[in-house]
Amino acid sequence: MNGAEALLETSRRLGVEVCFANPGTTEMPLVAALDRVRLRAVLGLFEGVCTGAADGYARMAERPAATLLHLGPGFANGLANLHNARRAGSAVVNWIGDHAAWHLAADAPLTSDIAALAGTLGWVRTARGATTLAQDGADAIAAALGPPAGVASLIIPVDAQGRNATVPSLAPLRAERAGPDERAVSAAARALAAGSRSGLLLGGRALRGPALHAAARIAAHTGCAVLTETFTARHERGAGLPDFPRLPYFPEQARTTLSGVDRLVLAGAKNPVAFFGYEGQPSRLAHEACEITTLCSAQDEAAAALEALADAAGAPRDAAGAPSRAVVPARPRPVPASGALDASALGRTLAALQPEGAIVVDEAATSGLAWSAHAAGAKPHTALALTGGAIGQGLPCAAGAALACPGRRVIAFQADGSGLYTLQALWTMAREALDVTVVVCANRVYRILQVELARAGVAEPGPAARSLTQLGPPVLDWVAAARAFGVPGVSVASADALADALGRALAEPGPSLVEAVLTH
Amino acid sequence: MNGAEALLETSRRLGVEVCFANPGTTEMPLVAALDRVRLRAVLGLFEGVCTGAADGYARMAERPAATLLHLGPGFANGLANLHNARRAGSAVVNWIGDHAAWHLAADAPLTSDIAALAGTLGWVRTARGATTLAQDGADAIAAALGPPAGVASLIIPVDAQGRNATVPSLAPLRAERAGPDERAVSAAARALAAGSRSGLLLGGRALRGPALHAAARIAAHTGCAVLTETFTARHERGAGLPDFPRLPYFPEQARTTLSGVDRLVLAGAKNPVAFFGYEGQPSRLAHEACEITTLCSAQDEAAAALEALADAAGAPRDAAGAPSRAVVPARPRPVPASGALDASALGRTLAALQPEGAIVVDEAATSGLAWSAHAAGAKPHTALALTGGAIGQGLPCAAGAALACPGRRVIAFQADGSGLYTLQALWTMAREALDVTVVVCANRVYRILQVELARAGVAEPGPAARSLTQLGPPVLDWVAAARAFGVPGVSVASADALADALGRALAEPGPSLVEAVLTH
Repeated sequence: MNGAEALLETSRRLGVEVCFANPGTTEMPLVAALDRVRLRAVLGLFEGVCTGAADGYARMAERPAATLLHLGPGFANGLANLHNARRAGSAVVNWIGDHAAWHLAADAPLTSDIAALAGTLGWVRTARGATTLAQDGADAIAAALGPPAGVASLIIPVDAQGRNATVPSLAPLRAERAGPDERAVSAAARALAAGSRSGLLLGGRALRGPALHAAARIAAHTGCAVLTETFTARHERGAGLPDFPRLPYFPEQARTTLSGVDRLVLAGAKNPVAFFGYEGQPSRLAHEACEITTLCSAQDEAAAALEALADAAGAPRDAAGAPSRAVVPARPRPVPASGALDASALGRTLAALQPEGAIVVDEAATSGLAWSAHAAGAKPHTALALTGGAIGQGLPCAAGAALACPGRRVIAFQADGSGLYTLQALWTMAREALDVTVVVCANRVYRILQVELARAGVAEPGPAARSLTQLGPPVLDWVAAARAFGVPGVSVASADALADALGRALAEPGPSLVEAVLTH
Repeated sequence: MNGAEALLETSRRLGVEVCFANPGTTEMPLVAALDRVRLRAVLGLFEGVCTGAADGYARMAERPAATLLHLGPGFANGLANLHNARRAGSAVVNWIGDHAAWHLAADAPLTSDIAALAGTLGWVRTARGATTLAQDGADAIAAALGPPAGVASLIIPVDAQGRNATVPSLAPLRAERAGPDERAVSAAARALAAGSRSGLLLGGRALRGPALHAAARIAAHTGCAVLTETFTARHERGAGLPDFPRLPYFPEQARTTLSGVDRLVLAGAKNPVAFFGYEGQPSRLAHEACEITTLCSAQDEAAAALEALADAAGAPRDAAGAPSRAVVPARPRPVPASGALDASALGRTLAALQPEGAIVVDEAATSGLAWSAHAAGAKPHTALALTGGAIGQGLPCAAGAALACPGRRVIAFQADGSGLYTLQALWTMAREALDVTVVVCANRVYRILQVELARAGVAEPGPAARSLTQLGPPVLDWVAAARAFGVPGVSVASADALADALGRALAEPGPSLVEAVLTH
């Protein structure tokens, strides 16, 4: 057994099942070892596909995802989606091949400072040899599982991959999830005593069913406001589930939302800050005098913490003494739109047709707001959002989520500008025959930039500024792009045609793409 | 005038004419300033397109290229092609927007350590305010121009962009190019006295016409071997130009080539090392006892240095006392191939049909060797190669070269696997109506990985290893990909059809794509 095999066998025993790969010459022993260890390898045609898929997989599989990448430039190609994974708290381990240690001094063309690149994301180690490689791999998985969970990068010189090694006996690893902390629960209960002047902000694992029910129980009893983070790694929504307003994106709106909250309890959420800093506006979104109390972190068992908080706040239990489930008001079930196809009609139609158990990867950007509102009344589903703001996450994330959850329909709800960053993910969907329905919101502009230009006081952008916000001419042909990568596609320009096309796409196995050409 | 305008106006005065951009919210003042300063902005749909285009532009325009990128993740997306630019010695300045300085502590979703990322490539500075921004921009250009020329990154917090500033009065900047160094010339002349046991390795500016003629004069007089570097940033070739063998890629072959060379003179080249380190083989390609002498660096005026060397070595001058031009033997002009379409037929046909003055961006990888051999007899042209080994450089580089040289035909001679990394460059070619003919070598495998697997001793790759080297199923449809991005395309599967399609494509203005489906 060589170092590569020892690393992969150890990683497999510690829970790694899939490796999202785009290897090169310095990873050949690892490539050969994949077959010997029987680890599933999924090829991405670009490293950003591999890392985004690893993020989506880790979010849904709740086990560490692995990538196999080629030196510094290959790793850099995947860095943006690792940034998103880090912000999502996804456990992702990168195996990055490097030159043989003795060859580094030659400064060969592909030599670069991989450790400096990877260090911007968290844990990084350069393996020193074959015999310690299995332990390095275990340490990387442990670092990725956290807390806090995130990205861990192991740089593996090719000579360490090829030399003799053994698999050590290692204790199983699992993500540590703290239960309720008594002092935090008491402090949160005191904060919520402010009633309607108090708020509860949900993030992390507080966005799953049991935690949402506990939050609803707390709200019903204390009168506190409940909100969810703006961009959530994994959020269970739909009929039968308590649903809470999302903290708005723009800081003015978010500050208005929080203006009445004097005591804010964070359950799996971070103290909210503005996505971007605007002159004259503070970073922090809660008002200056607002007291912040942390109930639990994103990774902790938020449901248990929130149930303990409900009890501590005096919320009633049911007749049997068990925590009662919240009474969830019936919400109108969305129906498909008809007529012109704008973002609102698109959102309504998608919410109406998405099947039960769907995983909706929402990188729809400005086109996605209507869907988010309608989705509260849709069938129960899981929504995955862009956590780190690095666009190009949606299509890869959808591929990874589909690999993690073979029985569920994945919907990649995708802004066109962002989707073009990593459209190569379509090919991985086709190769792996993934049940992904891609819905492209083709507004053919970088809408958010047009909004931001206006916010920056540019009322009439000049030709250069305008050209940088427009995705045409030439207009992108998404159906042709899908065909290029082996995915069937259709373009629609009315709400009725969308409902038809979407109904068909969602009923068929394997990937397909619907380009929704939006009216402006 | 604000900081953004002062930066751009200063940069324009110092020679920047084009900015390859994919901006976001933190670059809005810079976007607005582009129009006021009248700097040409070229949108890329992915940052790797912007940076690869900047590299190609800088190689051909011989003026600094600029990019405009969005925070750490946007910069990371462009990092691989900046790695190639650094290895090419291309003067590229990155303007990277960042959060307002006061917002960084909030650790907003897009916050990351941009300086650490950019520091892996060379010069980096974070602007401290608006009033010093113009000087920062000038310093970045000076750093990019070198020596050594390369990549310089200026991180520009959005608050610095928007505040008041002025344009300082600055001296012009130009790339410093050292003339012949007397001692280096003497040492090189002594080294060449070894006659046929001596060698001359050309790189950098030694690959242009006058320098090539001087090298031929030296070889004719001293009997030394002349070689060119394996991957050259810019190489003038074709009828009427002296042509020399390229140092082979694989180290065994390169060492054989250099085994008879006891004294090696470097003219614009680096002391050659293996691209990858293989167990049991040294990094250095010249034999252990070979003496290395440096005549000039990649950036120096190699023609003058080589002419001085020719004189010092005693090469005769012509009757008028001027350095004589080398006698260049007439080489057979390639003719288009017929019949089956393999890499050899493709290379011959392309060499036969490429027009005079063509710029051929060669990222054809394993499919490009035949072309390289035939191109010596083609019409005079310029070849740009992949200098840093980070694939995905070809299509963006072609777009940038076309922007730099509007009157010349650019041919993107492109391996399919590498081309898929940054195929979004097709859109920039269409939007800017660039005269680029894309020739895709569709062998539908990562051939080099199959070769490297075999070299690593894997005679029969298992299913996982095999799947990582194959670009299908599904087979990529490059014509559909081109159409998606607004570029007309055609697929050919015989040498005759290739000659027809290529002839038409090269005769028409604007971009088009020819997919050459290669037999295996």
